[in-house]
Amino acid sequence: MAYKKEDNISYSLGSFATMELLKYRKNTVKKIYLHKDIKQSADIDELLAIAKNANIPCEQNSHKIENISKKENVYCMGEFEKYEDTLGDGNQIVLHNPSDMGNLGTIFRTALGFGFKNIVLISPCADRFNPKTVRASMGAVFGLNVVEFSSFEEYAEKYKDIKKYLFMLDGNTILQDLEPKNEKIALVFGNEATGLPQNVKKFGEPVFIKHTNAIDSLNLAISASIAMFKFSK
Amino acid sequence: MAYKKEDNISYSLGSFATMELLKYRKNTVKKIYLHKDIKQSADIDELLAIAKNANIPCEQNSHKIENISKKENVYCMGEFEKYEDTLGDGNQIVLHNPSDMGNLGTIFRTALGFGFKNIVLISPCADRFNPKTVRASMGAVFGLNVVEFSSFEEYAEKYKDIKKYLFMLDGNTILQDLEPKNEKIALVFGNEATGLPQNVKKFGEPVFIKHTNAIDSLNLAISASIAMFKFSK
Repeated sequence: MAYKKEDNISYSLGSFATMELLKYRKNTVKKIYLHKDIKQSADIDELLAIAKNANIPCEQNSHKIENISKKENVYCMGEFEKYEDTLGDGNQIVLHNPSDMGNLGTIFRTALGFGFKNIVLISPCADRFNPKTVRASMGAVFGLNVVEFSSFEEYAEKYKDIKKYLFMLDGNTILQDLEPKNEKIALVFGNEATGLPQNVKKFGEPVFIKHTNAIDSLNLAISASIAMFKFSK
Repeated sequence: MAYKKEDNISYSLGSFATMELLKYRKNTVKKIYLHKDIKQSADIDELLAIAKNANIPCEQNSHKIENISKKENVYCMGEFEKYEDTLGDGNQIVLHNPSDMGNLGTIFRTALGFGFKNIVLISPCADRFNPKTVRASMGAVFGLNVVEFSSFEEYAEKYKDIKKYLFMLDGNTILQDLEPKNEKIALVFGNEATGLPQNVKKFGEPVFIKHTNAIDSLNLAISASIAMFKFSK
């Protein structure tokens, strides 16, 4: 059976993402699947040792892996129970209706790399637990606190005191000119096609990443990564 | 027939990329294909008017579009003859053996956005004319000068006087701390999996985009975009 969003379980594809799953979310892991064509390696040995120590069953099941991954070259897969996170106390990344799983995963990976551990998704949004998102994140999703809100207003009400930078094409503040202050911040990005709605402007400071008019806009994952870099120490 | 790298022709998928093709490379365009399900719009009308003025034939051929695009939702496609570029006088982006067409296209789009119009590809490298690359670039590839070299040494020999920043995980210079000077620069990036080889170090200044050790590395398109942002005015 292929993965479905409604399922309570999902999968990490490949040994790298599965290792991250075991590192950050060991208690959610139900099973490790191995492909019959898997090659022995130090990484795989370490992964299997961790699983064994945690009493996580391992099973050879190439068919299951192929069904879920729909790609070649996946030889190892973790099965885990979906979980709920709560936000920690640090800076936040807020994604309003992100629709592309590749973008979402790439943003997760950059966020973990630049120490933005708290991620807010405003629904509707791409499925953070879909194996494609997990894979695009290279397992980084497991190292983050990701929380979903049903509207920006609900989120903004709960986090009134955090300084919100709203990335918009008509932002008056130019990111290149901005001098980061020592304050708690949220970097807020809109949907790939439609951007942030105008009615969120009252909640923060609209910022534009200056680019030439030879392009319409930067890709969402690129914009978010540039902003995280700017605010990274 | 599907697209092949050896062909002398390639395709722009969708009206946006095809408009960019007509804007920058009108002389290379052989034909415009339209899908039977295309909806009339101001964009399509403008595109067809430009083609008509340039005596470029238009043909309804849904089958051809579906064969090339292998995706739904492509209603318009341009056919063009591949061309050779020469580098202009400005800053350069150098990509050493990039293997992923999505990354390549995304980098093209960001490069056009930040005014890096000269792109060097060190082969072997992903096909810049593949319809997937063109689509990922949203047609930005047509607005750039892209030139292929068969080795980094050959490139470095020809462009001795340009300051080269080499993005490497063991770079001593931290990008966050770097103060861009007013000089002509090349930003150089390695392959997605293997990075830049150590033997290019003598040609420039190794730079690291500082990130936590919670991730192995940043995605290639993300690294390149962050670097271009840093050096954008």
